[in-house]
Amino acid sequence: MATVIVTRRVHFNAAHRLHNPALSDDENRRLFGPCNNPNYHGHNYELDISVAGTIDPTTGFVADLSAVKRIAEEHVLRHLDHKNLNLDVPAFAELNPTSENIVVVIWRMLEGRLPGTLVRLVLWETPRNRVEYSGT
Amino acid sequence: MATVIVTRRVHFNAAHRLHNPALSDDENRRLFGPCNNPNYHGHNYELDISVAGTIDPTTGFVADLSAVKRIAEEHVLRHLDHKNLNLDVPAFAELNPTSENIVVVIWRMLEGRLPGTLVRLVLWETPRNRVEYSGT
Amino acid sequence: MATVIVTRRVHFNAAHRLHNPALSDDENRRLFGPCNNPNYHGHNYELDISVAGTIDPTTGFVADLSAVKRIAEEHVLRHLDHKNLNLDVPAFAELNPTSENIVVVIWRMLEGRLPGTLVRLVLWETPRNRVEYSGT
Amino acid sequence: MATVIVTRRVHFNAAHRLHNPALSDDENRRLFGPCNNPNYHGHNYELDISVAGTIDPTTGFVADLSAVKRIAEEHVLRHLDHKNLNLDVPAFAELNPTSENIVVVIWRMLEGRLPGTLVRLVLWETPRNRVEYSGT
Amino acid sequence: MATVIVTRRVHFNAAHRLHNPALSDDENRRLFGPCNNPNYHGHNYELDISVAGTIDPTTGFVADLSAVKRIAEEHVLRHLDHKNLNLDVPAFAELNPTSENIVVVIWRMLEGRLPGTLVRLVLWETPRNRVEYSGT
Amino acid sequence: MATVIVTRRVHFNAAHRLHNPALSDDENRRLFGPCNNPNYHGHNYELDISVAGTIDPTTGFVADLSAVKRIAEEHVLRHLDHKNLNLDVPAFAELNPTSENIVVVIWRMLEGRLPGTLVRLVLWETPRNRVEYSGT
Repeated sequence: MATVIVTRRVHFNAAHRLHNPALSDDENRRLFGPCNNPNYHGHNYELDISVAGTIDPTTGFVADLSAVKRIAEEHVLRHLDHKNLNLDVPAFAELNPTSENIVVVIWRMLEGRLPGTLVRLVLWETPRNRVEYSGT
Repeated sequence: MATVIVTRRVHFNAAHRLHNPALSDDENRRLFGPCNNPNYHGHNYELDISVAGTIDPTTGFVADLSAVKRIAEEHVLRHLDHKNLNLDVPAFAELNPTSENIVVVIWRMLEGRLPGTLVRLVLWETPRNRVEYSGT
Repeated sequence: MATVIVTRRVHFNAAHRLHNPALSDDENRRLFGPCNNPNYHGHNYELDISVAGTIDPTTGFVADLSAVKRIAEEHVLRHLDHKNLNLDVPAFAELNPTSENIVVVIWRMLEGRLPGTLVRLVLWETPRNRVEYSGT
Repeated sequence: MATVIVTRRVHFNAAHRLHNPALSDDENRRLFGPCNNPNYHGHNYELDISVAGTIDPTTGFVADLSAVKRIAEEHVLRHLDHKNLNLDVPAFAELNPTSENIVVVIWRMLEGRLPGTLVRLVLWETPRNRVEYSGT
Repeated sequence: MATVIVTRRVHFNAAHRLHNPALSDDENRRLFGPCNNPNYHGHNYELDISVAGTIDPTTGFVADLSAVKRIAEEHVLRHLDHKNLNLDVPAFAELNPTSENIVVVIWRMLEGRLPGTLVRLVLWETPRNRVEYSGT
Repeated sequence: MATVIVTRRVHFNAAHRLHNPALSDDENRRLFGPCNNPNYHGHNYELDISVAGTIDPTTGFVADLSAVKRIAEEHVLRHLDHKNLNLDVPAFAELNPTSENIVVVIWRMLEGRLPGTLVRLVLWETPRNRVEYSGT
């Protein structure tokens, strides 16, 4: 019984600002540079969702990727796409929306809801910057 | 004397919101859908800057692409990168920051400042949506 | 009044076979090589749809790209996506589904139906092979 | 003695249809949607072949990637490229050619034939859908 | 009779150095910066070859892209791939191998040899820098 | 405390030649083919630098990717970008600059200098050939 990892890529466009309200404005500018711009900036995020499992002999699927897409749309994209992460997403009301924190928040949105076992999320903030989380 | 077009790609990350203040909120939502989100969303923009000219026999260049990059950084990216187009960029104080309007604004920022003749700008809002302007 | 070209990329997956029934099997194999396989092969096609126009001062759009996408879905993708071009698409009942012929057929499917003026279609059969048609 | 993983990407174009003959037509349509089209559809598949090993001090190679390419051409691409997976490939005579099943079949085609140790295959059905198999 | 442009992308890897022997070493360093390194540097070049023509009713082709590829291999890639442009390619014995000069040299290598009419070459030195030549 | 891997992609352009001086010219040509060209060839290399760690609650970062970029520029790119690997880089004075050997050399250049723990380097010689090293 082969174990295969299947991955679906989805995307969302969002505004955000890196800021820690417990620090001074100067300290925020020093730590986050242009990402601290008070009026926000934004990204085309790409998210790779990977689930693992054995191949179902009836379907030949580990997971129906159109189902993975639908679940991502309902539990992730509906909340993040075309949003301001700082202002529109409760999870970031008091959490800095760095890529590291975003990928962990998305894990919690998806965990237990997907066919197969969620094993890895990769979040691309730009084609040159990405983060990867495996749930631990 | 061969005429060659040389193109440099640069990028910037920005937040924006599509909105026409002369219209009602309902009409704005109908026209712009999720792009009308009051708290903004954002993109990784890619910009292809093309200049044409004959090849300088001394350098073999139509235009030194590192000079094109520096001019783009000073006259475009400094104003747009990690910014909120609606709030931080004077050109969009009363102009809707659609890709079409952004590319025309960038043309005015670059025109007459580049080595060679500016002949084409292509602005990618996402890998699937882009606009192209040739100055007329 | 600036004239801008706006482009939307859409995709479809299809099977096809290059074959001219007026020629012998040997001649077909010689002309089309592995693309003549009697049982078909297939591609992930990408289609860039470009329309030109002046910017509408109310919307800032030359064309609403989500409308372009919807029209492409109704008039092109519904007929070609997840299809066998030779067997499932009437336009290719007696026309060899080369990329050249496909792009002209798609032009006829879209012409007169899009906001703005259709000015260019680019059809990518693979990331290394593409065709471009401007309607003449 | 450093252990390095080297990866070669190859591609093939193929037609296929997702279908389980043990199920009713209705059930097949429900499970596989447009991928169940009786006349097939197709894809540009990309395959990443990864082998691991220590670096040979004479060559500086873990594996000569041009040899990996030749072996892939002989043992994989010759059988799958420009083919109908359901009709032309014996391995899929009674096995549904989902990406999951294809990647396991390719593993068997390559196992034991490559320089170094085959450690991972990634098969891209589209730029957004892929599967990964490590042999267990 | 539709006129279609068909494009084939090919690639080559080469070393080069930007240098004008008529200038002083200081002037060369000022003009070409790190590209003037005496020991050369290199690139993965991508070349898009575009030919135009009407569709042949027998084949459905403007030009058989596998023929375009073979001609490019014989007349361009055999001379440039895995070469030092300055030392190994006679055309650059006294011509600075800038992208602008390379694309004009390639035009001369291909002109009159391809099926259809050569209408455009695009040479990518990197994914961010490219040049385009149409023969005049 | 979540452990996240963050990755920054950087690039460099370099010339190189595959050659083992302990072997005959014939043997070198047989082993390395066109990569043995005495006058060198070159590549646009892409390097993915991955570091792992827990998320700092003050910054929301595992590692500030602009710091990763600066360290890569100082300790890797300054030595390799626009260079001839065989002639300009001491590490390759007696070591064949295959991708496998380059990635191990880069590991030593970066190890212990980055925020977080260096866990993986991926070096792309071309979009189809890459190597991956995890330090053991």
